[in-house]
Amino acid sequence: MSGWLCIAGLGPGDEAMVTPAVSQALAEATDVLGYIPYVARVVARPGLRLHPSDNREELHRARAALALAAQGERVVVVSSGDPGVFAMAAAVFEAMEGREDWQALDVRVLPGITAMLAAAARAGAPLGHDFCAINLSDNLKPWSLIDRRVRAAAGADMAMAFYNPRSASRPHTFEQVLAVLRETCEPTRWVIFARSVSTPQEQLMCVPLCDARPEMADMRTLVIVGSSTTRCVGRFVYTPRSAS
Amino acid sequence: MSGWLCIAGLGPGDEAMVTPAVSQALAEATDVLGYIPYVARVVARPGLRLHPSDNREELHRARAALALAAQGERVVVVSSGDPGVFAMAAAVFEAMEGREDWQALDVRVLPGITAMLAAAARAGAPLGHDFCAINLSDNLKPWSLIDRRVRAAAGADMAMAFYNPRSASRPHTFEQVLAVLRETCEPTRWVIFARSVSTPQEQLMCVPLCDARPEMADMRTLVIVGSSTTRCVGRFVYTPRSAS
Repeated sequence: MSGWLCIAGLGPGDEAMVTPAVSQALAEATDVLGYIPYVARVVARPGLRLHPSDNREELHRARAALALAAQGERVVVVSSGDPGVFAMAAAVFEAMEGREDWQALDVRVLPGITAMLAAAARAGAPLGHDFCAINLSDNLKPWSLIDRRVRAAAGADMAMAFYNPRSASRPHTFEQVLAVLRETCEPTRWVIFARSVSTPQEQLMCVPLCDARPEMADMRTLVIVGSSTTRCVGRFVYTPRSAS
Repeated sequence: MSGWLCIAGLGPGDEAMVTPAVSQALAEATDVLGYIPYVARVVARPGLRLHPSDNREELHRARAALALAAQGERVVVVSSGDPGVFAMAAAVFEAMEGREDWQALDVRVLPGITAMLAAAARAGAPLGHDFCAINLSDNLKPWSLIDRRVRAAAGADMAMAFYNPRSASRPHTFEQVLAVLRETCEPTRWVIFARSVSTPQEQLMCVPLCDARPEMADMRTLVIVGSSTTRCVGRFVYTPRSAS
């Protein structure tokens, strides 16, 4: 019995952004579990079992991965980006609750390049000063909490990175967030829409808040809102290191 | 004239967390610039000029790098972690201000594993829900702004990652931040002190806020403060995906 479980981040999409630590874990694994499009990024080979599963099955997937590791398998759960940021790591630890046998397993989290870092790098350095990361999906939290956090971040003049800004099943959240931003920030505030960064489908758009529209974002978009000091130089957007 | 400039993140310390994109840029470079301990991580080879420089010389270093790229050299500016998070990318864009020739150069930011992601991964998943990143160095901003941002994050119940919490030249900032946290959060709130993560000097400590002491942090420590929902399971600390 020498099973283990790694919860690994595949980064934003470009294979040149997958860390060697993650590649090594995948090379040693017997089983890979994850959301269908992420498992599809793992190269098949003899002796490796791929277990793709649907979205919104995180807890079920986490339990299946822990059970396999407990049986002695070498298991990798893959997330895109970083597994600790709005991804599978929290689900695996949730699944451990009440299971001392699973808590004793060899479980490691292997970090990855999360979407906001990849998006910021493409745009320049909009997260060069204090910032926050907020998941706009309201599947797991009420709108009131999103509203409170966006107002707090705007009030303290932090840049913001929004994950999962908009989906077909909840088209109104991002519209409401834009309304809060229009109320709390000046109309010239920079907003960056970064879609599918580092993939062939990459699209990057930077507009002042007054020109930002809800339909500029979808589930594959990472939105960054600058602070009041965020500015453009040439084709780049950045937040100076100095603030007063 | 085919010079270029990459601003590259070396990750937290472990070479297995340097992305292939960054390794590739270093393999093609003629010149590497950066703070002394970061340049020391780059393997010397014939044809590669290393330009280590002191801390607090960011703007001077950025100008030197841009000037070299303008002369046709292939230049990499190295940061630890991610270059866009409290590191060199913002300094390079600041140095471009007023210089249209430098703005036209081939400049790219190559993201890296920033300290808070590496620290969170070692601890479990404390940044599994909304969070913010705050630089506690008051070299470039007033204490009043740090105070305002910590209170905003605590008030909106976001987890917090503190960069550069404490140094010999400013031992009191982190003490003041702990006082603000004691005023705004419950005494059982989890605080993680992650020092030199992924290096042989790694130290990880997780204590309730009531037991947190200023001297638990230094400049090589990344501090994570959980949200009100952050909890322990076995030896791991995580923030559940669901909040109400």
